Amino acid sequence: MKNVAPSDARPRSRNSRVIDLNADLGEGIGDDAAMVQLVTSANIACGFHAGTPTLLRRTCEQAVASGVRIGAQVSYPDRDGFGRRFMEIAPEDLIADVLFQIGALSGIARSVGGTVDYVKPHGALYNAIVAHPEQATAVVTAVGEAGLALMGLPGSLSLELARDAGIPVLTEGFADRAYTPEGTLVPRGTAGAVLTDTAAVADRVVKLATTGRIRALDGSPIIVHADSICLHGDTPGALEHARAVRRALTAAGVRVSAR
Amino acid sequence: MKNVAPSDARPRSRNSRVIDLNADLGEGIGDDAAMVQLVTSANIACGFHAGTPTLLRRTCEQAVASGVRIGAQVSYPDRDGFGRRFMEIAPEDLIADVLFQIGALSGIARSVGGTVDYVKPHGALYNAIVAHPEQATAVVTAVGEAGLALMGLPGSLSLELARDAGIPVLTEGFADRAYTPEGTLVPRGTAGAVLTDTAAVADRVVKLATTGRIRALDGSPIIVHADSICLHGDTPGALEHARAVRRALTAAGVRVSAR
Amino acid sequence: MKNVAPSDARPRSRNSRVIDLNADLGEGIGDDAAMVQLVTSANIACGFHAGTPTLLRRTCEQAVASGVRIGAQVSYPDRDGFGRRFMEIAPEDLIADVLFQIGALSGIARSVGGTVDYVKPHGALYNAIVAHPEQATAVVTAVGEAGLALMGLPGSLSLELARDAGIPVLTEGFADRAYTPEGTLVPRGTAGAVLTDTAAVADRVVKLATTGRIRALDGSPIIVHADSICLHGDTPGALEHARAVRRALTAAGVRVSAR
Amino acid sequence: MKNVAPSDARPRSRNSRVIDLNADLGEGIGDDAAMVQLVTSANIACGFHAGTPTLLRRTCEQAVASGVRIGAQVSYPDRDGFGRRFMEIAPEDLIADVLFQIGALSGIARSVGGTVDYVKPHGALYNAIVAHPEQATAVVTAVGEAGLALMGLPGSLSLELARDAGIPVLTEGFADRAYTPEGTLVPRGTAGAVLTDTAAVADRVVKLATTGRIRALDGSPIIVHADSICLHGDTPGALEHARAVRRALTAAGVRVSAR
Repeated sequence: MKNVAPSDARPRSRNSRVIDLNADLGEGIGDDAAMVQLVTSANIACGFHAGTPTLLRRTCEQAVASGVRIGAQVSYPDRDGFGRRFMEIAPEDLIADVLFQIGALSGIARSVGGTVDYVKPHGALYNAIVAHPEQATAVVTAVGEAGLALMGLPGSLSLELARDAGIPVLTEGFADRAYTPEGTLVPRGTAGAVLTDTAAVADRVVKLATTGRIRALDGSPIIVHADSICLHGDTPGALEHARAVRRALTAAGVRVSAR
Repeated sequence: MKNVAPSDARPRSRNSRVIDLNADLGEGIGDDAAMVQLVTSANIACGFHAGTPTLLRRTCEQAVASGVRIGAQVSYPDRDGFGRRFMEIAPEDLIADVLFQIGALSGIARSVGGTVDYVKPHGALYNAIVAHPEQATAVVTAVGEAGLALMGLPGSLSLELARDAGIPVLTEGFADRAYTPEGTLVPRGTAGAVLTDTAAVADRVVKLATTGRIRALDGSPIIVHADSICLHGDTPGALEHARAVRRALTAAGVRVSAR
Repeated sequence: MKNVAPSDARPRSRNSRVIDLNADLGEGIGDDAAMVQLVTSANIACGFHAGTPTLLRRTCEQAVASGVRIGAQVSYPDRDGFGRRFMEIAPEDLIADVLFQIGALSGIARSVGGTVDYVKPHGALYNAIVAHPEQATAVVTAVGEAGLALMGLPGSLSLELARDAGIPVLTEGFADRAYTPEGTLVPRGTAGAVLTDTAAVADRVVKLATTGRIRALDGSPIIVHADSICLHGDTPGALEHARAVRRALTAAGVRVSAR
Repeated sequence: MKNVAPSDARPRSRNSRVIDLNADLGEGIGDDAAMVQLVTSANIACGFHAGTPTLLRRTCEQAVASGVRIGAQVSYPDRDGFGRRFMEIAPEDLIADVLFQIGALSGIARSVGGTVDYVKPHGALYNAIVAHPEQATAVVTAVGEAGLALMGLPGSLSLELARDAGIPVLTEGFADRAYTPEGTLVPRGTAGAVLTDTAAVADRVVKLATTGRIRALDGSPIIVHADSICLHGDTPGALEHARAVRRALTAAGVRVSAR
C-alpha cells in the first residue's frame, strides 16, 4: 500500500496538524546529505535533467537511511537546459519518457531497500502540465500505469485528470515563492517573487500547514491547500530556511511527516 | 576436447530438444517487427548504447504480443560508440548503471504487460566481463540485486560468479560466429570469423541445439553448451538466416522455446 | 498569384539555368556515399540531432572528394527526438547552440580540406524560425557571427531577417513535397503531402529550376523561387529520385551547381 | 601567429622570470568569474565532460575580457563520469572527437572576439596520453591538424610526439600536487598527494617558476620544467591559493603571463 496522503476538494482543516516537506535532491547541487534529514519527501532526479545513476543511488540510500519518502522527479530529456525548457513532445513519447524515468529510479531505489511512491515532474514539465491537455494527460497516464501518486500544483489540470482517473494526488505549496491573487506562483524575475527572509519563509510554511490562509503578493487573502511544502534546496540559505521551518512547525504543534 | 562451460553442473544431454533463440532488438536498426516473431528471447536496448524510451516501449509491446521473453541489454553509457568501447568504470558506478537500465526497461515492460527476466550485457561490456574481475563482479551484483538471470558466454568469469552467487545463468552460443579451439569467439576481422552462408548457419544452430558438438575454425572438435542461440538481427540476410534456422530446428525435432 | 519570397530583390529569371541540389547527410541513415555524388550541397548533421564526430568527418571527406558544398545542419539538442520537437530555448542559449554546432562541423571540415559555407537548420528548428521572432533572430545572429549563408524556406522570417542583416540567403524548394496555395509546405500526414512518383518528382524539380512555376496541391499556380532543391535522402527510392532528377535537369539544359 | 610559449629540451634558466598560470574553467563548478582574473590561460571545457554551449560562451567572454589565453579542454565523451574514466576509443574516433571539440570551442570563442590557442586534454584522456601510443598519436594528430599547441605533462609521450611533429608544446607543473622521485604525480588517494597548505602551494609555484627545483614526496630533489602552472579551480580554498600564488610570484619578481 502506498504511503500517499490523499488530497481532496475540501479546504484543509484549521487543526490539520500534519504536513509533508519535500525538496529536490540528486541533482548534484546543494547539500543533499543535510537537506535529506530536514524533509520527509525527496524528489530525486532521474537523469533526464540532472543526476547520474551513482548519484541517484547514493541519494536513495540517504533517503532510506533517513526514513524519507522517495518521489521520481521526472523531466523532459534536456540536460543542457536542466529541464527548464518547454519541449513539444508527443504524448506517446512523453508517456514512455516518464515510464522510463520512474522505472530507472525504482530499480535504483529497490536495490537499496526503498520504493518510489510518487512522481513530481520537474521544471518546464511541471509548469506545462498545469494547463497543457496532451502533456498533462500523458503524464497522468504514465503515473497511473506505474501505480504511483502525482504531486503538483493545486488547481492544475494534471491533478484534476489524476483525480478523475482515481490516481492519488499530493498538492504542493511553496515555502519561498510569492503567490498571485489567483493562487498561482508569481513568475521568477518579478520583484518579490522569491521570499528570502528566513522568518517570512517559516511563517509562510506554518500558515500553509495550519489554516492554508496566506497573503498573495498584492496583500489579498488566499487559501492554498497543500499536502506538502516544497523547500528549495539549491538556493543560498536553503538549509537555514529548512531548519527554521522545522523549528517553527514544531513550535506551532505541527507534525512533519509524509504519512 | 575442451568442454566449454556447462550452464549447469551436469553436461547438457545429447537428446536435449529445446533451445532458446535470442536477438538484439530496440536498437533502431534492422527489422524488429519481423525478427521478434522468429526468436523466443528479445535482448532489448536500454538507452545507454541505443534506443529511445518510445522505441523500447514499442519493442516491449512487440515482444509481449509475440510471447517472447524480455531481457535487458545493458551497456556502458556510450551512445556515440554504440557501447562497443571498453570503459574503465568503477564498480560502484557500473552497479548503478546496470540497475538504472534494468529498472528503466522493467518500468517500460510492465506498462505493456511484460516483465524483464534476464540481463544480457552488450558490446564491450559483454566482452569485458568474460575476464575483468571488478566489472564482472559489479554486473553480477546488480543482476542479483534485481533478481534476474544473467545471459553470457559459457566459461566467462561473470557466469561463474553468478553461479557462485546462486544467480540463474543462461549460456549462449552464436549462430554465425566462428569459434577458436578454446571455445571463444574468433575476433571479427579475422578471415572466416563470421558465417555468412545460410545453410552453414542453420547447420551450426542445429548442432548447438542437439549435441553441442561443433567444429572450431581450425577444424578441431569442441563442445559448446548453449541454453540460447544468438541470432544477429542487424546483418544483411539476418531474417533469412533466422527463418532457415527455425526450419532446420523444426526438421531436427528441436523445440524452440525460452522455457 | 502569390510570389513566394525571392532569394534576392529581383525575380528569378525564367531562363535561369543553374540549380543547386541539397540533401541531409551524416545522420546515419540512408546511403550517404551514393547520395553525396548526386547533390551539390550537403547539409551535414552536427551531432545535436544525429551524427557522431567520426561520421561527420567521413561525410565531410565524401563531400570534399565529390566537390560538394558543405552546410551545417544545426538542430535543437534533441537526439531522442531526432531534432523534430520544438524546444522553447532562450535566444542566448540558441545562439550558443548554433555557434557550437557550426564551429564543431567547421573544425571537422577543415581537417579534411573543406569549409562550411552555409547553415541549414534541421527539423523543428527549421520550422520554428519560419515565424518565431526570438528564435529566428537568434539563428540569424549566430549565422551572421559565423560569417556564413543561411538556407531556408522562401518567405520565412529568418530569411527576411538575414537579408536585412546583409547575410547571404539561399532559398530552397522541395522535390517531393506538395505546396499550399500560399507557397508553404502541405504538412506531412495530409493526403498528397509527399510526392512518391519518380517522374512527378523529376518534373517538379525541372519546373522549380527553370520557371519556378508549379502547381499547389489544389491545382492553383504558384511561383517558388528556389536557389536550391532539397532531395530527401532517407526515404525509399531516394537515390532513384535523385538520379531521375539529375537526368531530367540535364535533359532540360539546366546546370547543377552550388555556385 | 599563435601566442604559444615553446618548451624545449634545455633546463629552464634560473633567471626565467615569466610563468603562465592555467585553470580549468567552464565546467559549471567553482567561481569562474573570480578565477579567470587570476590566471593567464583558461582551459575551457568543450561539452564532452562538462559545460553547455552557453556556459562555454560566457566563459570565453570572461577570458577575452580578462585578456586570458583560451585552451580547449578536450575530453572523452563521458558526461556521467566527468571525463575521468578511461575509454578504449579507436584512433579514428578520437581524432574526430578532439577535432569536433576544438572546432566547437573555436566557433564559440571567435564569436566573442577570442581564439583557441592550445589544447589541454582533460581527466582520463590527459593521463592516457602520457603513455598510450595510439591515443597519444591520435590527440597529437588532431592538435596538429587544428594548428594549435599541446599542453601536457613534461616527459609524456604525447608531448614527445608533438615535438617530433613540429607542434608547439607547453609543459605543465602542478601547484598543489606531490611528485614522485621520477617526476610524475603522486596518485590522488595517497597520503600527501595533494598540498592543502596555502603557503606550501605558493612556495611550490615560485620554485617551479624560477629554478624548477622542487622536492618529491619522499624528499628527493627533482627538476620540473614547466611553462605553465595548473591551479585547481574546484577545490576548497582554490581562490585563496590562487591569490597567494600571484602575490608570491610578484614578490619573487616573476612575471605572470601566457606570452
